[in-house]
Amino acid sequence: MSPSSAARRDDKADAPAMKPPMRDALVSAAFQLFVERGYEQTTVDDIVALAGVGRRSFFRYFPSKEDVVFPDHERCLADLTAFLAASDGADEPVARVCDAARLVFGMYAENPAFSVQRYRLTREVPGLRAYELSVVWRYERALAGYLRERFADRREGTLQADVVAAAVVAAHNNALRSWLRAGGRGGAAAVDHALGHVRAVYGGPAEGSPAPYAVRPVTPDGDGDVVVVVCRRGAPLWRVVQELEPVLGGRD
Amino acid sequence: MSPSSAARRDDKADAPAMKPPMRDALVSAAFQLFVERGYEQTTVDDIVALAGVGRRSFFRYFPSKEDVVFPDHERCLADLTAFLAASDGADEPVARVCDAARLVFGMYAENPAFSVQRYRLTREVPGLRAYELSVVWRYERALAGYLRERFADRREGTLQADVVAAAVVAAHNNALRSWLRAGGRGGAAAVDHALGHVRAVYGGPAEGSPAPYAVRPVTPDGDGDVVVVVCRRGAPLWRVVQELEPVLGGRD
Repeated sequence: MSPSSAARRDDKADAPAMKPPMRDALVSAAFQLFVERGYEQTTVDDIVALAGVGRRSFFRYFPSKEDVVFPDHERCLADLTAFLAASDGADEPVARVCDAARLVFGMYAENPAFSVQRYRLTREVPGLRAYELSVVWRYERALAGYLRERFADRREGTLQADVVAAAVVAAHNNALRSWLRAGGRGGAAAVDHALGHVRAVYGGPAEGSPAPYAVRPVTPDGDGDVVVVVCRRGAPLWRVVQELEPVLGGRD
Repeated sequence: MSPSSAARRDDKADAPAMKPPMRDALVSAAFQLFVERGYEQTTVDDIVALAGVGRRSFFRYFPSKEDVVFPDHERCLADLTAFLAASDGADEPVARVCDAARLVFGMYAENPAFSVQRYRLTREVPGLRAYELSVVWRYERALAGYLRERFADRREGTLQADVVAAAVVAAHNNALRSWLRAGGRGGAAAVDHALGHVRAVYGGPAEGSPAPYAVRPVTPDGDGDVVVVVCRRGAPLWRVVQELEPVLGGRD
């Protein structure tokens, strides 16, 4: 693609997904100024002046000054939605949403220095914090929407879907925050570990593990104080939990 | 308290907690106009004109037009924080945060018609949706902060705290949304039920149940396909899950 045709592509609606140079230049200029002067003290005029482009170019890529702080979330949300839509129904649903959450971490990990800089910024500017919460909410709703479809035949499927989506987002963000506080050093191991925790509680059996399973709580006669559970290795933990809950008793 | 002394109290910083008549009048006027003209088309000037007070009175109670939409959240957040702080450490932590979440539902249930009206408004106005997300985030952080302290001696206590807080909020909001969609009819049973789900997964034994517990996964020699779990009735489900997870295997 020649530079001139690349420039023409910049005018297209899908240009943000292409990460064209002008867009990158605007993001770089914006962050340079946010760090130097502070977010509130920086205007869109300052940003376009430093980037050497006109105001219209800025608003072609970013609806507002806030949006330049999160230049990749729309693309990432689209990727995540496409990834979930591409599920063929054979995936274990909780594993699938955990993998989807890893896409979000991947976006942060693509450019650790930028992610850390932005993290500091969002902690200082309440408006950006609110913007970020809206973005997180959209990720969570995308995960929940997928799970609601997959859990459609479960009793209380929508409740389970909402709770699992929230747990996945919370686990992801817990690990992400640690990673950001550590300056963006280290790999995805902490995120994998945190998501593994959610999957262990709510996930079904991994692919290749025995599909049929049995959970049989046995409470010996004469001694109501001990519960014996027999289950097949590879039984989904949530199924065991579902069987155990009423048997363990003692709550409410 | 005489009317005049009540009016003097209106000038105090703690006035919002008192729900003085002028504050209520502003909320009523605001919602009347939001419904008649739409939120965006209503100005603070319109609201104070209808309520028959000056602009300064409005801003004494509400920092912005958005805040008048959520007049009780600050009080509720303070109540929730105080409720958690008043825990003597003998409460089962997950039960405590579930009870805290019930305070939030209680605020909605205090005035169902108003809550339903506001629900419709927040779904139509993106700015209000963002505001509400910030409020929900503050509730969630309050619950997580309490749980982090209570889980301080657990391995991965902060991860568990964040995930449980998110699960509680998601379960609460799932039931709350159903209640709002049904026009605010019905009691707190759906919220209790949804929170019970989270408590069954993450909660410890209820008060009065045997405190010490044992979880012993037994895998018979020669047949790695069956897992036997022996646990005391009243064992916290999350502890059983923690023990079972590595034994069940088959994931990742």
